[in-house]
Amino acid sequence: MSETRLEKDALGALEIPAGARHGIHTARALANFPLLGRPVHPALARAFGAVKLAALRTNLRLGYLPEDERADAMARACQELMEGTLAADIRVDALQGGAGTSTNMNVNEVLANRALELLGLPRGDYGTVSPTGHLNLHQSTNDTFPTALRVAAIHGLRELELRVLGLQEAFQDRERAFAHVVKVGRTELQDAVLTTLGRTMGAFAEALNRDRWRLAKAEERLRVVNLGGTAIGTGLAAPTDYIFQATDALRDITGLGLARAENLVEATQNADALVEVSGLLKALASTLIKICSDLRLLASGPQAGLGEVILPPVQAGSSIMPGKVNPVIPEAATQAAIMTIAHDQALTLAVSLGNLELNAFLPLAAHSLLESLDLLARACGLLRERCVLGLAADEARCRAQVENGTAAATALLPLLGYERTCELVARLDGRGLREAGIQEGYFTADQFEALTSPEAVGRLGFRKARP
Amino acid sequence: MSETRLEKDALGALEIPAGARHGIHTARALANFPLLGRPVHPALARAFGAVKLAALRTNLRLGYLPEDERADAMARACQELMEGTLAADIRVDALQGGAGTSTNMNVNEVLANRALELLGLPRGDYGTVSPTGHLNLHQSTNDTFPTALRVAAIHGLRELELRVLGLQEAFQDRERAFAHVVKVGRTELQDAVLTTLGRTMGAFAEALNRDRWRLAKAEERLRVVNLGGTAIGTGLAAPTDYIFQATDALRDITGLGLARAENLVEATQNADALVEVSGLLKALASTLIKICSDLRLLASGPQAGLGEVILPPVQAGSSIMPGKVNPVIPEAATQAAIMTIAHDQALTLAVSLGNLELNAFLPLAAHSLLESLDLLARACGLLRERCVLGLAADEARCRAQVENGTAAATALLPLLGYERTCELVARLDGRGLREAGIQEGYFTADQFEALTSPEAVGRLGFRKARP
Amino acid sequence: MSETRLEKDALGALEIPAGARHGIHTARALANFPLLGRPVHPALARAFGAVKLAALRTNLRLGYLPEDERADAMARACQELMEGTLAADIRVDALQGGAGTSTNMNVNEVLANRALELLGLPRGDYGTVSPTGHLNLHQSTNDTFPTALRVAAIHGLRELELRVLGLQEAFQDRERAFAHVVKVGRTELQDAVLTTLGRTMGAFAEALNRDRWRLAKAEERLRVVNLGGTAIGTGLAAPTDYIFQATDALRDITGLGLARAENLVEATQNADALVEVSGLLKALASTLIKICSDLRLLASGPQAGLGEVILPPVQAGSSIMPGKVNPVIPEAATQAAIMTIAHDQALTLAVSLGNLELNAFLPLAAHSLLESLDLLARACGLLRERCVLGLAADEARCRAQVENGTAAATALLPLLGYERTCELVARLDGRGLREAGIQEGYFTADQFEALTSPEAVGRLGFRKARP
Amino acid sequence: MSETRLEKDALGALEIPAGARHGIHTARALANFPLLGRPVHPALARAFGAVKLAALRTNLRLGYLPEDERADAMARACQELMEGTLAADIRVDALQGGAGTSTNMNVNEVLANRALELLGLPRGDYGTVSPTGHLNLHQSTNDTFPTALRVAAIHGLRELELRVLGLQEAFQDRERAFAHVVKVGRTELQDAVLTTLGRTMGAFAEALNRDRWRLAKAEERLRVVNLGGTAIGTGLAAPTDYIFQATDALRDITGLGLARAENLVEATQNADALVEVSGLLKALASTLIKICSDLRLLASGPQAGLGEVILPPVQAGSSIMPGKVNPVIPEAATQAAIMTIAHDQALTLAVSLGNLELNAFLPLAAHSLLESLDLLARACGLLRERCVLGLAADEARCRAQVENGTAAATALLPLLGYERTCELVARLDGRGLREAGIQEGYFTADQFEALTSPEAVGRLGFRKARP
Repeated sequence: MSETRLEKDALGALEIPAGARHGIHTARALANFPLLGRPVHPALARAFGAVKLAALRTNLRLGYLPEDERADAMARACQELMEGTLAADIRVDALQGGAGTSTNMNVNEVLANRALELLGLPRGDYGTVSPTGHLNLHQSTNDTFPTALRVAAIHGLRELELRVLGLQEAFQDRERAFAHVVKVGRTELQDAVLTTLGRTMGAFAEALNRDRWRLAKAEERLRVVNLGGTAIGTGLAAPTDYIFQATDALRDITGLGLARAENLVEATQNADALVEVSGLLKALASTLIKICSDLRLLASGPQAGLGEVILPPVQAGSSIMPGKVNPVIPEAATQAAIMTIAHDQALTLAVSLGNLELNAFLPLAAHSLLESLDLLARACGLLRERCVLGLAADEARCRAQVENGTAAATALLPLLGYERTCELVARLDGRGLREAGIQEGYFTADQFEALTSPEAVGRLGFRKARP
Repeated sequence: MSETRLEKDALGALEIPAGARHGIHTARALANFPLLGRPVHPALARAFGAVKLAALRTNLRLGYLPEDERADAMARACQELMEGTLAADIRVDALQGGAGTSTNMNVNEVLANRALELLGLPRGDYGTVSPTGHLNLHQSTNDTFPTALRVAAIHGLRELELRVLGLQEAFQDRERAFAHVVKVGRTELQDAVLTTLGRTMGAFAEALNRDRWRLAKAEERLRVVNLGGTAIGTGLAAPTDYIFQATDALRDITGLGLARAENLVEATQNADALVEVSGLLKALASTLIKICSDLRLLASGPQAGLGEVILPPVQAGSSIMPGKVNPVIPEAATQAAIMTIAHDQALTLAVSLGNLELNAFLPLAAHSLLESLDLLARACGLLRERCVLGLAADEARCRAQVENGTAAATALLPLLGYERTCELVARLDGRGLREAGIQEGYFTADQFEALTSPEAVGRLGFRKARP
Repeated sequence: MSETRLEKDALGALEIPAGARHGIHTARALANFPLLGRPVHPALARAFGAVKLAALRTNLRLGYLPEDERADAMARACQELMEGTLAADIRVDALQGGAGTSTNMNVNEVLANRALELLGLPRGDYGTVSPTGHLNLHQSTNDTFPTALRVAAIHGLRELELRVLGLQEAFQDRERAFAHVVKVGRTELQDAVLTTLGRTMGAFAEALNRDRWRLAKAEERLRVVNLGGTAIGTGLAAPTDYIFQATDALRDITGLGLARAENLVEATQNADALVEVSGLLKALASTLIKICSDLRLLASGPQAGLGEVILPPVQAGSSIMPGKVNPVIPEAATQAAIMTIAHDQALTLAVSLGNLELNAFLPLAAHSLLESLDLLARACGLLRERCVLGLAADEARCRAQVENGTAAATALLPLLGYERTCELVARLDGRGLREAGIQEGYFTADQFEALTSPEAVGRLGFRKARP
Repeated sequence: MSETRLEKDALGALEIPAGARHGIHTARALANFPLLGRPVHPALARAFGAVKLAALRTNLRLGYLPEDERADAMARACQELMEGTLAADIRVDALQGGAGTSTNMNVNEVLANRALELLGLPRGDYGTVSPTGHLNLHQSTNDTFPTALRVAAIHGLRELELRVLGLQEAFQDRERAFAHVVKVGRTELQDAVLTTLGRTMGAFAEALNRDRWRLAKAEERLRVVNLGGTAIGTGLAAPTDYIFQATDALRDITGLGLARAENLVEATQNADALVEVSGLLKALASTLIKICSDLRLLASGPQAGLGEVILPPVQAGSSIMPGKVNPVIPEAATQAAIMTIAHDQALTLAVSLGNLELNAFLPLAAHSLLESLDLLARACGLLRERCVLGLAADEARCRAQVENGTAAATALLPLLGYERTCELVARLDGRGLREAGIQEGYFTADQFEALTSPEAVGRLGFRKARP
């Protein structure tokens, strides 16, 4: 039994490993693009399964392909690709030239050979099941690649949305847990006025809530697909009824509210929707960097820093300094967020550099977008599970900072007024505000407690006598 | 008469030029921040006028300030700032430290001195009209700066939307004008299949239409303001009724559908909405780069290039090569778009680097966002007026490329089928497709015209016999 | 007397304001490019003066132009441009299309008209002094613009180098002043081991020293110019002896070690040297962001933060919170650095998008580079003058953090060994390390002082007995 | 036989798969950082082998560890890591928190267990060979990670340099091959003056030559390492003689001209050298984008484009359009270059966000830098092998464009002078320049050939009579 089989294309013939499900076009692409060392994102491969199934079903329904054993085998192969069981066969490099042609052909070849397997026929028997004649019928890379990318991105967005929700809820949980912890608020890293640790957590949750809403909106932009457009969106070589029905089939298969683009020529050449969505991911990344930076600051010290919160230890920090615990989860999440910002730049350039009727750099855009979705989803998950849910307050330290600093001075205004407050601040002489105020008779301990209570601190504005 | 007046602050006293409307805080800021060499964006200064007027009116209505001559003078000063007549007095550098404090104080000082002028009183008589006591009453930089920035950005977005519409309509006009011009479509810069120049123009218009829709949506994010939040969003030192009514006043003054943020603490510290909006501007920038690149390509040559369109000449291209006309407008617009992408990066970093209860880098975010809005609006306006409206087609050249290349081959498929088309292509022997096809008897001239007519080319898909 | 004069070009005629030194090409450019609202950088205009003077002198020396009154007037005009006195007349927008043609023509026209002024002749008398025939003789935008840009950038680099040196020296001064201040060192914002504040300052100085060295190296890349290349570097329309001598003249005029590019065609189309230099500026920006962030952290608090250093107050921080001082200078410098990073992105794109024999986006590259040079120079100057030279240490707080935290534990290892140190740390029971150690008899006060002295902390490694 | 072994750390105990060479610290890190889904770069792991070997040898030489069987086993394990045979065991995610601690511990654990294997002892017998006590002796992540990163980066730079040279030489080969092909040169994509295709190739080669030189220079910056600095560069817990000798050992092992940083504290906290090197890679990326864009433009068409060069076909371009060949190699290389630009942004942010005595985000910087080195090396290799070496000229088309366009007009100036040349251009009446000129008697065919010969076109400047 031979270890290879011979396949041919317009450039000549190549030996393909007999056990490989891919064919000659994939083999050439593997040789042409050993760049990133990673295959196209598995979510894109799965989405291609759905797109191919939609085209197949439409061709079958309209009679362009016969409903026979081959059709069943091809449909099952498409299903397997959708479900991820053919993932290892989609091997072309993520950074491929050709606007995604190699991905499409890798998919077509694998589906054909898998269908042949299911039919008990040898791989490479393309006369029976053809990568182009059957699996690419009435299709082009120009329409299947952008469509599959949108399907994959929508799935990624939904997963991310759940993770953002999970993180938001974790912060809301901490908001409740720390509602009573009064602490110093800071502007420009300088002690400013009092707030509560609960509010700090609540602000994180609120920002994430806005991100979650954005992600939901982002999906809308991606629902418009150009399936049926074939070459440059002209629908060339595709029958009109196929063009009008293929997207419906894809909608049924995926359960996503997809719609065919009105202007297929336009939808084929432009990818600004990806820039838009990536920009929204960047906003989430920006929020995560800010939150992680705040967590690192709040947990700094624990003695010679702010030291207001204690992050759950998840690994030893140092072999030289025993007991040292580092904020490794926020640090890791920050790096994921930075990488998302960088991916956004790559995607923006890739999309901006498109020419005329097609964008040759769509594979990079796909890689950047799908990887960012993963990175952010994982970062949110990690932050929730390994950091925020276990977050503790150092209440004693928060209180000490309230009592000993001058940030509480503004809280005394309702009792002392501006002049007497300044007077007190001027007389501290090394003592904390609370101690000095009581000693000098400005207020009692109870009064100080009341003025710096969570209720007082949380009150929005005050009732003021008119002048 | 003295040429300076003496003003004091917590750090000491300074001589201020007698004719200056600004005061000591501005003077210190001018010395502290000679960085960019440009003052804060005039739109931000105008929006500050609206914010200050809203606060003033609310304070007056609620009785926190007396309705007297001074109030009238302050209101008129705010109006003037809104209208731009005090623009030259808002001089602090756009890249200031302090989270915008210097801008707010510059505004407060100028308004106070302008009000004093209107009252016939000397500048610096802050006992009568106080920059802080009156013009900043119940306010903080923490709430007025972000609020003013949002107001300014909304105005900028609306202006930009109009300009994008103008450019879109110009391309739609060209779409109609060039609907009949059949030409070669290209994927990856390689001749592919036939299309029309009208479709090319239509694709540009459609992409811009999507941008326009995005800009309208972007406004929604900016309508939520934190006016009333004062220090870190606590509403500290502000009366509750003021907090609840100030935004209403601002809505009345600006006519914009503004709403007070539910969570003022959160709204004060986070600026992700700016990242989101800037990301949408970046999507427009990306679209503009692509369109301008296409225009430059389509106009390239005119002989040794694509040469399908002729850009209106707007200036001489070269002193050495007479008659040379360069695509200077798309080149300029491209640079504006690139700069917008760079501004987006600056803004993203500025927002990401915020700490705890306040973002110190908001002035950079403001500069980046407002400058991007300007750049894009101007680029769209220039493209419309000086490039697209005067765009002409080189119809003869488009036709010659259709007749002489092989891109038209796919258009012959309905007549010849795949095999005979390939056969013809193989027999060209240096002749154009049309010439060879007629000479060899594959089709008549009329048939070729019909198959490459705008109607044939524009048809979406074909009626196909079932196998 | 008329208020305008009529000028003509290939596109027709325009009325030019009689008082304007610029002519019709500038007028068209002003109408074509109202984009950024800022003219080309004045340093570029000054450098153009040097380039034009070099070309003029070479043409005179070789006899291509007569040594007459006109020559003297033109030379004087060039001198004035070099010295900046004609700055206001170079008005075309920094973001112009045309690869800099409009800048070159603005320069040519202003020089011609200024020469005519000096000759007592009316502006616009181009028969006598011609913007193209005299001032652009044997030149093209293709060679003069890149050459002038390099000259301007070298001047900017030298200025920046001085400012970086100034900042470095200020930190070295503080290094000496704080050499004795032992403090907690932190990794990942967590208390780690002891260091001195002097070392912290020294590390800033050392990083800047490396930047300074880089800037000096960067100049080397910019010294190679393409003057003499004219159109696309062919030297078209220029005599050979002129081509070989023009750069020498420019070297004499500027005193910079300029050299003619061996391959003028290449030097005309590629601008990677600008990407390289901008990348080095980005490294400095990165260092500044880190330093400023550290200064903000070290000065945070002053009570509920790290509070180790005290920045000199340069303006009042808040009207609500009296006495609050914000780190406005590091904040402003950070924004300048962020903007430099963004400019680097713009420049990288502008250079990357060059096509074939010329880069049309050089004006954006010029703007980005020259503005970054300014921003960084100013940021360094501000940091030195208004922040670092006045930096003070809070020695008592540094000492208290050493005595009360556990970061000093590793300093005890030479005395106590690992086990007993851990034992002590486990027995703190709320006490500081020093207090507990003395009370429990682990060490005397003197021993603790010795182990945490600047000398002990500054010692590199220790003498260890072999096992 | 058990399937797991129990390991303990400060946080508790974990079951480790019995067959795993990694230990508990790695296991925690694997659980903590499932972010990117890729382990640290293999080159970093290999470089860690060298660093560990250097520390081991120094400890042995100075007598801090005994020269026994264990030492031999550890040395052999380090060798294996250097050679890549333990690559699969270094599994922690590239995007880890903790400033690289997890990488260092993964290395330490794998080396310890591999040494135990070699000794015939069970994994986990850390009493005999200890990950910290032996393999990390006198070391810290703070010094080993940055040192290993520099070693890895230098190796990457050298490999890249070779690949850039290879590409440069390929273009030089094409320069010679196409020296005689006269063609139209273009500025701003508009036909300008004549040049040769050889010059085009030569310009690419020259730009790459500059890049190569830069890469060589970049290595200098990376040769300064902080090995011996241990915690924050203090040399804490390391003996002085070790500190002074460890780098020498590393230099011997690697053969690289490494030097110990004078200021170890500084060298530990700052990573600006990485920003510098990454910025130089960005310059190469920019050059590659420009070159690839030019190749795509020059190969565009082949009929309805510039069509001057023919790229070697490496895969079929389309199933719908037979014979279509796309520029997939330049497209792929462009994407690699764009990704490098994005990595540079990630690295710049990671470095800029460092805090105080350590940069927590160094793992991201390492990933970005090492991946960029790979991407660029592979892109250059692909371009050479699969594109440039097989590049062909379409000489007939180049000639036709010379004869039929007006770009050749400037070449006629020496013969006809400016006026008559313009006159001829005005009389073309649809004819090409050559045809019309001969027909109208402006020149003979021979004269035209001479004026547009490679020699005439390649001549720099001309001999000009003085006026």
